[in-house]
Amino acid sequence: MSLLGDLLNTVFERRYAGASGDDSRPIDRLARDLLEAGDEMTELELARRILDRYGRMDDGERLAFFSFLADDCGIDTGELREALDRYEAEQGIRNYRALMAAAEPPRQELFRRLNRVPGATAKLVQMRGDLLRVTRDHPSLKRLDTDLRHLLRSWFNRGFLVLRPISWETPANVLEKIIHYEAVHAIHSWEDLRLRLEPPDRRCFAFFHPAMPDDPLIFVEVALTRGVPGAIDDLLTGTRKALQPGKADTAVFYSISNCQRGLAGISFGNSLIKQVVAELSAECPQLRTFVTLSPIPGLAVWMAEQGVTLTPEDDDAAARLPRIAARYLLGMEGQRPKDPVARFHLGNGAEIHDIHVAADLSESGRRQSHGVMVNYLYDPDRIARNLAGLAAGRPAASRRVQGLARQAEKKEPS
Amino acid sequence: MSLLGDLLNTVFERRYAGASGDDSRPIDRLARDLLEAGDEMTELELARRILDRYGRMDDGERLAFFSFLADDCGIDTGELREALDRYEAEQGIRNYRALMAAAEPPRQELFRRLNRVPGATAKLVQMRGDLLRVTRDHPSLKRLDTDLRHLLRSWFNRGFLVLRPISWETPANVLEKIIHYEAVHAIHSWEDLRLRLEPPDRRCFAFFHPAMPDDPLIFVEVALTRGVPGAIDDLLTGTRKALQPGKADTAVFYSISNCQRGLAGISFGNSLIKQVVAELSAECPQLRTFVTLSPIPGLAVWMAEQGVTLTPEDDDAAARLPRIAARYLLGMEGQRPKDPVARFHLGNGAEIHDIHVAADLSESGRRQSHGVMVNYLYDPDRIARNLAGLAAGRPAASRRVQGLARQAEKKEPS
Amino acid sequence: MSLLGDLLNTVFERRYAGASGDDSRPIDRLARDLLEAGDEMTELELARRILDRYGRMDDGERLAFFSFLADDCGIDTGELREALDRYEAEQGIRNYRALMAAAEPPRQELFRRLNRVPGATAKLVQMRGDLLRVTRDHPSLKRLDTDLRHLLRSWFNRGFLVLRPISWETPANVLEKIIHYEAVHAIHSWEDLRLRLEPPDRRCFAFFHPAMPDDPLIFVEVALTRGVPGAIDDLLTGTRKALQPGKADTAVFYSISNCQRGLAGISFGNSLIKQVVAELSAECPQLRTFVTLSPIPGLAVWMAEQGVTLTPEDDDAAARLPRIAARYLLGMEGQRPKDPVARFHLGNGAEIHDIHVAADLSESGRRQSHGVMVNYLYDPDRIARNLAGLAAGRPAASRRVQGLARQAEKKEPS
Amino acid sequence: MSLLGDLLNTVFERRYAGASGDDSRPIDRLARDLLEAGDEMTELELARRILDRYGRMDDGERLAFFSFLADDCGIDTGELREALDRYEAEQGIRNYRALMAAAEPPRQELFRRLNRVPGATAKLVQMRGDLLRVTRDHPSLKRLDTDLRHLLRSWFNRGFLVLRPISWETPANVLEKIIHYEAVHAIHSWEDLRLRLEPPDRRCFAFFHPAMPDDPLIFVEVALTRGVPGAIDDLLTGTRKALQPGKADTAVFYSISNCQRGLAGISFGNSLIKQVVAELSAECPQLRTFVTLSPIPGLAVWMAEQGVTLTPEDDDAAARLPRIAARYLLGMEGQRPKDPVARFHLGNGAEIHDIHVAADLSESGRRQSHGVMVNYLYDPDRIARNLAGLAAGRPAASRRVQGLARQAEKKEPS
Repeated sequence: MSLLGDLLNTVFERRYAGASGDDSRPIDRLARDLLEAGDEMTELELARRILDRYGRMDDGERLAFFSFLADDCGIDTGELREALDRYEAEQGIRNYRALMAAAEPPRQELFRRLNRVPGATAKLVQMRGDLLRVTRDHPSLKRLDTDLRHLLRSWFNRGFLVLRPISWETPANVLEKIIHYEAVHAIHSWEDLRLRLEPPDRRCFAFFHPAMPDDPLIFVEVALTRGVPGAIDDLLTGTRKALQPGKADTAVFYSISNCQRGLAGISFGNSLIKQVVAELSAECPQLRTFVTLSPIPGLAVWMAEQGVTLTPEDDDAAARLPRIAARYLLGMEGQRPKDPVARFHLGNGAEIHDIHVAADLSESGRRQSHGVMVNYLYDPDRIARNLAGLAAGRPAASRRVQGLARQAEKKEPS
Repeated sequence: MSLLGDLLNTVFERRYAGASGDDSRPIDRLARDLLEAGDEMTELELARRILDRYGRMDDGERLAFFSFLADDCGIDTGELREALDRYEAEQGIRNYRALMAAAEPPRQELFRRLNRVPGATAKLVQMRGDLLRVTRDHPSLKRLDTDLRHLLRSWFNRGFLVLRPISWETPANVLEKIIHYEAVHAIHSWEDLRLRLEPPDRRCFAFFHPAMPDDPLIFVEVALTRGVPGAIDDLLTGTRKALQPGKADTAVFYSISNCQRGLAGISFGNSLIKQVVAELSAECPQLRTFVTLSPIPGLAVWMAEQGVTLTPEDDDAAARLPRIAARYLLGMEGQRPKDPVARFHLGNGAEIHDIHVAADLSESGRRQSHGVMVNYLYDPDRIARNLAGLAAGRPAASRRVQGLARQAEKKEPS
Repeated sequence: MSLLGDLLNTVFERRYAGASGDDSRPIDRLARDLLEAGDEMTELELARRILDRYGRMDDGERLAFFSFLADDCGIDTGELREALDRYEAEQGIRNYRALMAAAEPPRQELFRRLNRVPGATAKLVQMRGDLLRVTRDHPSLKRLDTDLRHLLRSWFNRGFLVLRPISWETPANVLEKIIHYEAVHAIHSWEDLRLRLEPPDRRCFAFFHPAMPDDPLIFVEVALTRGVPGAIDDLLTGTRKALQPGKADTAVFYSISNCQRGLAGISFGNSLIKQVVAELSAECPQLRTFVTLSPIPGLAVWMAEQGVTLTPEDDDAAARLPRIAARYLLGMEGQRPKDPVARFHLGNGAEIHDIHVAADLSESGRRQSHGVMVNYLYDPDRIARNLAGLAAGRPAASRRVQGLARQAEKKEPS
Repeated sequence: MSLLGDLLNTVFERRYAGASGDDSRPIDRLARDLLEAGDEMTELELARRILDRYGRMDDGERLAFFSFLADDCGIDTGELREALDRYEAEQGIRNYRALMAAAEPPRQELFRRLNRVPGATAKLVQMRGDLLRVTRDHPSLKRLDTDLRHLLRSWFNRGFLVLRPISWETPANVLEKIIHYEAVHAIHSWEDLRLRLEPPDRRCFAFFHPAMPDDPLIFVEVALTRGVPGAIDDLLTGTRKALQPGKADTAVFYSISNCQRGLAGISFGNSLIKQVVAELSAECPQLRTFVTLSPIPGLAVWMAEQGVTLTPEDDDAAARLPRIAARYLLGMEGQRPKDPVARFHLGNGAEIHDIHVAADLSESGRRQSHGVMVNYLYDPDRIARNLAGLAAGRPAASRRVQGLARQAEKKEPS
């Protein structure tokens, strides 16, 4: 692809644009020219230059470019009002087209033209990642972000995504991204990676976009087990004996990682889990249970807010921590779950299945949740009911977890 | 893919939606529900049903559905005006988001949700094809078409297209589409197709979208030759001896066909030609000339309008037809070229290179242009100049063609 | 690959061999040089020349080349005897190697050296096909054929073969070979081919050798049905309605064709059928019956030999033909089955399942077997028993077929 | 594939063979049965058992199995003599076939039958590797090795090998084998591997056999450079700046590793180098020089034998070591080169191009050759002449190297 890009460049654009690499026009000038150019080759060459230029910018220059996009390539409200007036007066197709044109900020077309360059999609995703890093300090850029997210959400429509298994036979340039992007239980080395991919009772799946074929968007790591596991080390240890896949009855989703900061706010996880359930059901029809083994990232902070100082070392931790965690996860009736991971899985229609102490004794596991972990269960037959319950403010949970929460109400000081 | 679709269906959606296949809600009800649904699985199931339902509709039902989309899923101008007022009063991010939401007709989101179903992209393209067939008689649907084209243009952005060679080693299910879509010189049989693909001096390339991997968007057929050919039969005859590609100096683009009626108004041809030039230049560095052998579809009608009744059988046809064709193609200074094929190639930066009589003696060749054909030349070094000339109302042409046009002015009664 | 072959040629061999294309050495000289050459590049260039030269030979020249290989590249019995004497005197490794070298005709090494040229394997297979055509008239060439078959059998070892499904998505250059090689029920056109590949209840599988990736060795066409069919037209007609594969209970192997005349005597059919049964069982676990619908090519001739003149038009044909066919197929106890197709399937462990009149009313079906066809059943649980029976001279057959054969003994004049 | 193997097993063989996994027949009994079995499924099941059994054997059991193959599955000389007598008496085809059958040890057919099991080829290669480890102590096994090598040489004929580039985009399960098999300059980690594969001025190519698609047979690592390098660290260091491939004029083959001990004595290196030269010439036409940077593994030992005690630390090492190395590499006129690497490259038609001191200062480089390395040059135009010179006892060398050798004669005490 890059070869071809180079060729096209050589054969057409460079010659045509009549320009050497040291075009000294500022990037906002190039961007305006791109919006106004009339022919494809000029546009392609301008787009390439803008992306190249952007790639070499420092943070200050990027901020300036974002400000240009936010301030000078947005909606012209006066024009929009005029177009609206005319369209309300006469709803002909010309007036409709003029209204639609006025209603879309020109930066949308700019991004679409940039995207024509081979490899541009990944660069636009990175650009949004850069943008997100600065919007906190520069809220005026949020309009720009709103537009860019809108465009990326359209382009990364689920219908365009491809689910691919990730295995030890996957190319190394993809695998190194799995190592890099793993966000839940860090992968420390290639040998560590191999333990998650090569054994016959391990699976991994990722969504890819065809325009970014080497760069996963999101991936999930799965362990095939007998029974629902209650501790992450049982899954990650290198000394365990692998299970024959045909003997597993449970698929455990033990790590889900989003890869592209630039796609924040565009959700793939729900689709991924459900498509992976379908894949695994086809491959291993004897699987009965689809469950996560998930962290509870907000538990420790919430306990601190509540004034509970219990740690796994305390004598009554094994009894009390599950009750506390159950109450935290189930939350107050009528409120959204506080925990972000709970919000995600409950929002997908899962239910809180079980809670385990001493389940993640890593440094981060202790810090976040005093080592407690939770299983969320995906039962296709109950997803609709679970969602309806959630909408009514009653997150779904197993009897055991409900019991724990009730005990918490009685026994835990609050 | 379809297997997976079925599985997903089985595992989740059917169960979840709790609905059998004979959902009796009308399609507009389903569409409204889809726009208002809150969770992905419901949305996916609703989207699938709408597409299935649409696939079984007759023309009248489709028209009704289109009218619903045009009339009930469009911009609410009152809401837009309010949002605009609020945004002008206070340009915060909330007001901006509200404005952007009000400025986009809800049918855009509807189409995006439909697209999540595996295989939906091709169905939406077909839907627009259906729509285009009725907009002439129902101009109120043009707003709908404007929006759908806008969305498809964004999705079929050149950055997402893949160029693939088409050869005798291409799967049959793709090749049958080449036979079906060929629009310039009909392919009468698989043996006929083989003559265009298998000889070493023949090439074919097509653009594909990843979501429609078996369905080309546009393709071009190429002959590698020594010298610029002047008659289509020289290229298509089955009795010629193939040239070793290394001995060719010229690549002749003798047929370009758009495949998807539903993508009308979204242009791929210019990109295709230029990318194919780059591919061929890499494969056969000794190629010097990239040229078309093109029909002149509007010539005969224009001659009739001008009162010229010359046919190839007339004694002076060989002398006069080229002059007439040159004048027709070059047109009046300052006007856009009348001929649609000329408009396409000149608009891409090509120039009129040569004109040939008795070049296409097929029934359609005689009917359209009295057998005259034209070569358009793509010279990377002159594309910029040619486009500048065209913008100034002076289409580019070789000396010979310019001479023919001048002769026409002198010798042809006008 | 051919590009690379050319390159290698250009870069090394041509230069090195110091020879232009018009090497005037006779082919037997080239062959001797190839056997005696000491370095790889010379050998490769000589091998290429021999294959090129062979490819341009007429029948007479080929016969002369075969005679050279048969007479001048065979075992030297004197040398073999000496080597044997020495080895019997002293069984050291040197003497063993010398014995093995003397025991293998030099043409084996010649063929192995020829095979190093890219694409040579297919040419050697064709060469054996050419050879087989002339061995009848030239029995002295049979020794050459013995050796070539021995080598090809080793190279086409089942462990090297690849089973690939053939479908409407298979490249056209492979599909045209399916059309060409179909030996049982001719495929008359691409549309005819499509009827056998595209419907969801049709399958086709072929064995390929990696060195001949576009050229199948053998293929089988399969229909998925409900129940065992009794007439070929029910399967081949274009007007039938396709069955959902999940609803089929039977897989019918209705055509098996060997493709390479040059691999005669090297059997792939048994492996193919059993591997296809395994594939289909994995894809459609609900399949219960694996059965053929087969011709009886020797029936009519045998009936004529027996003086039976019955044809389907006779009133009692429907009653008598199955009895006669059963007796023919079951044969005399203790004798090998007379019919070649019966011999193949019974030898694979199948059993005669049923016999149908008016089952193949094509011209060849009437001529060969008065329209009678037979089902051979592959039941994995009975293959061992069937083979043991066959070895004992009792071919396996269903009760019904055994009954028909008994009736024949009583009722048919013999 | 393994899935299919399992299926076949399940569907047919296990059932058919009527045998559970705990077949207690000794392996030599299984082997005899395999040679005498009459039907394919029995043969396949027996072959699978033998390979499984072999895979679980300890060294003593393997030795016993090898002895059985060597002693009990060899040529029957009495039978061979009889067959020879009969064939000399009457050279009919029957007698020829009987002679050929008697002249081939039955273990050859045994190996061919074993090879039919999916995945067997790799196991037979490993078996020969095991065999080679014990032949030194058990010379009577050399006959077995002679036969197995003969068979493997036929199966691993160059015409069946596939050249594949190895890059950072190659699957990890192949790359780990590159790390494992690298025999010249050890690869210490995945990051180390990346340095050899990912930079744009690095290449790697391997030969594969289609029956062992994940297991390379031999590979070569290449650096694209400007000029001929004189030290290995310049190539391997991670801190260098990568060259644009289009600016390189030289391809340096700096590491060639054979991967399969079981294919010892079957040479792939010559073909590999020449095919890689062809590939690189096609990709980078501006490359002018194809050269190695090679170790001199025998230099230090030879120097010790000669009584030369020079080490790189000595003052005159820089002047004397090249002279000594030149004399060692060129050797005595009329003798084969002593150094195994020199023998390989000179035998391929290369010439000694240059000699460098302090070129490999790794522990093994100092030990083997006091840090000296050598470039062998592959010049297609001179390969024939070089080989002719070598055959005449005069290895090819550049003027500079010849000069060094002459100086050595004058100045070095010998």
